[in-house]
Amino acid sequence: MKRIFNFSAGPAMLPESVLHQAADEMLDYKGSGMSVMEMSHRSKTYQGIIDEAEADLRKLLNIPANYKVLFLQGGGTTQFAMVPMNLMKNRVADYIITGHWAKKAYDEAKIFGKPNIIASSEDKLFSYIPDLKNLKYTPEADYVYMCENNTIFGTKYKSYPDTKGKILVNDASSCFLSEPLDVTKFGLIFAGAQKNVGPAGVTIVIIREDLLAIPPLPGTPTLLQYKIHADNGSMYNTPPAYGIYICGLVFKYLLGIGGLEAVKANNEKKAAILYNYIDSSKIFKGTVEKASRSLMNVCFRTGEPALDEAFLEGAKKAGFSNLPGHRSVGGMRASIYNAMPLAGVQALVDYMQKFEAEHVK
Amino acid sequence: MKRIFNFSAGPAMLPESVLHQAADEMLDYKGSGMSVMEMSHRSKTYQGIIDEAEADLRKLLNIPANYKVLFLQGGGTTQFAMVPMNLMKNRVADYIITGHWAKKAYDEAKIFGKPNIIASSEDKLFSYIPDLKNLKYTPEADYVYMCENNTIFGTKYKSYPDTKGKILVNDASSCFLSEPLDVTKFGLIFAGAQKNVGPAGVTIVIIREDLLAIPPLPGTPTLLQYKIHADNGSMYNTPPAYGIYICGLVFKYLLGIGGLEAVKANNEKKAAILYNYIDSSKIFKGTVEKASRSLMNVCFRTGEPALDEAFLEGAKKAGFSNLPGHRSVGGMRASIYNAMPLAGVQALVDYMQKFEAEHVK
Repeated sequence: MKRIFNFSAGPAMLPESVLHQAADEMLDYKGSGMSVMEMSHRSKTYQGIIDEAEADLRKLLNIPANYKVLFLQGGGTTQFAMVPMNLMKNRVADYIITGHWAKKAYDEAKIFGKPNIIASSEDKLFSYIPDLKNLKYTPEADYVYMCENNTIFGTKYKSYPDTKGKILVNDASSCFLSEPLDVTKFGLIFAGAQKNVGPAGVTIVIIREDLLAIPPLPGTPTLLQYKIHADNGSMYNTPPAYGIYICGLVFKYLLGIGGLEAVKANNEKKAAILYNYIDSSKIFKGTVEKASRSLMNVCFRTGEPALDEAFLEGAKKAGFSNLPGHRSVGGMRASIYNAMPLAGVQALVDYMQKFEAEHVK
Repeated sequence: MKRIFNFSAGPAMLPESVLHQAADEMLDYKGSGMSVMEMSHRSKTYQGIIDEAEADLRKLLNIPANYKVLFLQGGGTTQFAMVPMNLMKNRVADYIITGHWAKKAYDEAKIFGKPNIIASSEDKLFSYIPDLKNLKYTPEADYVYMCENNTIFGTKYKSYPDTKGKILVNDASSCFLSEPLDVTKFGLIFAGAQKNVGPAGVTIVIIREDLLAIPPLPGTPTLLQYKIHADNGSMYNTPPAYGIYICGLVFKYLLGIGGLEAVKANNEKKAAILYNYIDSSKIFKGTVEKASRSLMNVCFRTGEPALDEAFLEGAKKAGFSNLPGHRSVGGMRASIYNAMPLAGVQALVDYMQKFEAEHVK
């Protein structure tokens, strides 16, 4: 069995011990005589799996009792619609545009009402997080929307806007469970699982209970109503049961290695190795403002497309997977989610140094 | 490793060889150095997986070129909304009500327009499929809706209504790939994967291309538009990649055992063992009209709740899982999907005979 260092922006690496356990339990989950894939979601055994997953997630994030945890389908893109369909009662909302995904969410909200852009970093190709101090909220806005970590551009919020009581909605997909998160700052947090948490096909939503009383917009399908899922423990219909099981294994693993403080320390260590080298390099440059740097997605380039090309070709041969930057920005991107071992980052830096030594004049 | 006979109505048994292969490939898919769960959905390797899955499904069902195959999320319940949102341009549709799920689909359609019930078997607790010969279609109806196999009640259509050119929509969830299906009879077929195909969290949609030109209703979220998924090869957003991979393994397995004619012959053999015994039994009775019997979900009872109870208790002890009927109907239900081995059905009949011998006076 070969395992490689996979720098994919998502779906991404999972802890090896989780994959081992999943493989071991594939034909017989804990003596049940069946795979978790084959199990009725109404069975006691499966109820135990989803309950334990939720309890462990609550432990990890210290989620207060007045927040519901939902395991849904449809990814972040479905949330782009569910957020306005469930929260935009005045048909107005404020959006902070820090990249591709925030923009997509803003575009989707136009189907349902009038989203306003109250800040954007598009002027500098989304290479920074806008100043959050003097945002002008629209008085009738139903919520304020942000995307905490911007996978494509490699930026991350280091603080949150003070929305003066307005509901703050956070697309935390690509930094979820990479560090502690103060849930109480938000009305709603959502995250696709396929970065730090589990396989694609599971979306986690954490929603403050009082928001469930807001009537959804007319024409909202039953399954796009948060309250339906909250009232039915995420089992109004058959949930993505196997994916939730894998998420649960990851939660257990994260608790086992010391919880999110320990995870954060490890992620900071990994990111520092890469950023420190980039900052000292003569040919590689980081692409975003230092104060806005993501711990998860490290974007860099040489400035010369042909050199980037040569670097990426060599990287591929050396066994580093998925290093090209997103097609909209080019260059390189190393996504170093929780499950990327420190050895992977070190090996990448070793290769970068070797490449630099060969190419610097 | 223990494996049991699991008569769950879904999620349900999967072929053991598929589970073995999934376990073997969990940490390293064909030398890629990663799990399919960890793989970028934009990678060549994953594109190969989804392309092969689609090609194999097309082979199995002989799907004509003018039909698109979509791998979606959200289950049948999401389709209950997507069908009207995408096809109900006059806001009118005709529904044939043969059970719980057809009724749910009908109720959901009310959010978007005026569905009409043109036939129903609710008068006899959904124990038969209504006569399809003299249905009165509503002239302005945009489509006619049916649910081919009724999981809870154990009935199945043996022919299809002639809709005189109107689009026929088929929820085929619980009989999909259990026998050949003439795709050309339908405008749209959908099926949740968790019966015969794969893990919950994947929904397969087969849609005739010309239907993609119908403009969705205003207010339809991007991800609930069939055309978006068709135009993007089911990858507008991150698909439920691992689930699709498992579906692909199942398709390959079904082709390997001879395709759907062979699958059907096997299913008929299994169902006959069970139905023949029930028909000859002095204490067990089938609950539906013989002409409407499902090959997948075999519903029966003794007529005495206490005796049912005793039977179910003994069955559980004997290692038969998930035999109680749906809570809305009671009694017993043996779901014998493709992956249930003949030995499982025979073992159940042996237990039933033993129970009968002990309890018949």
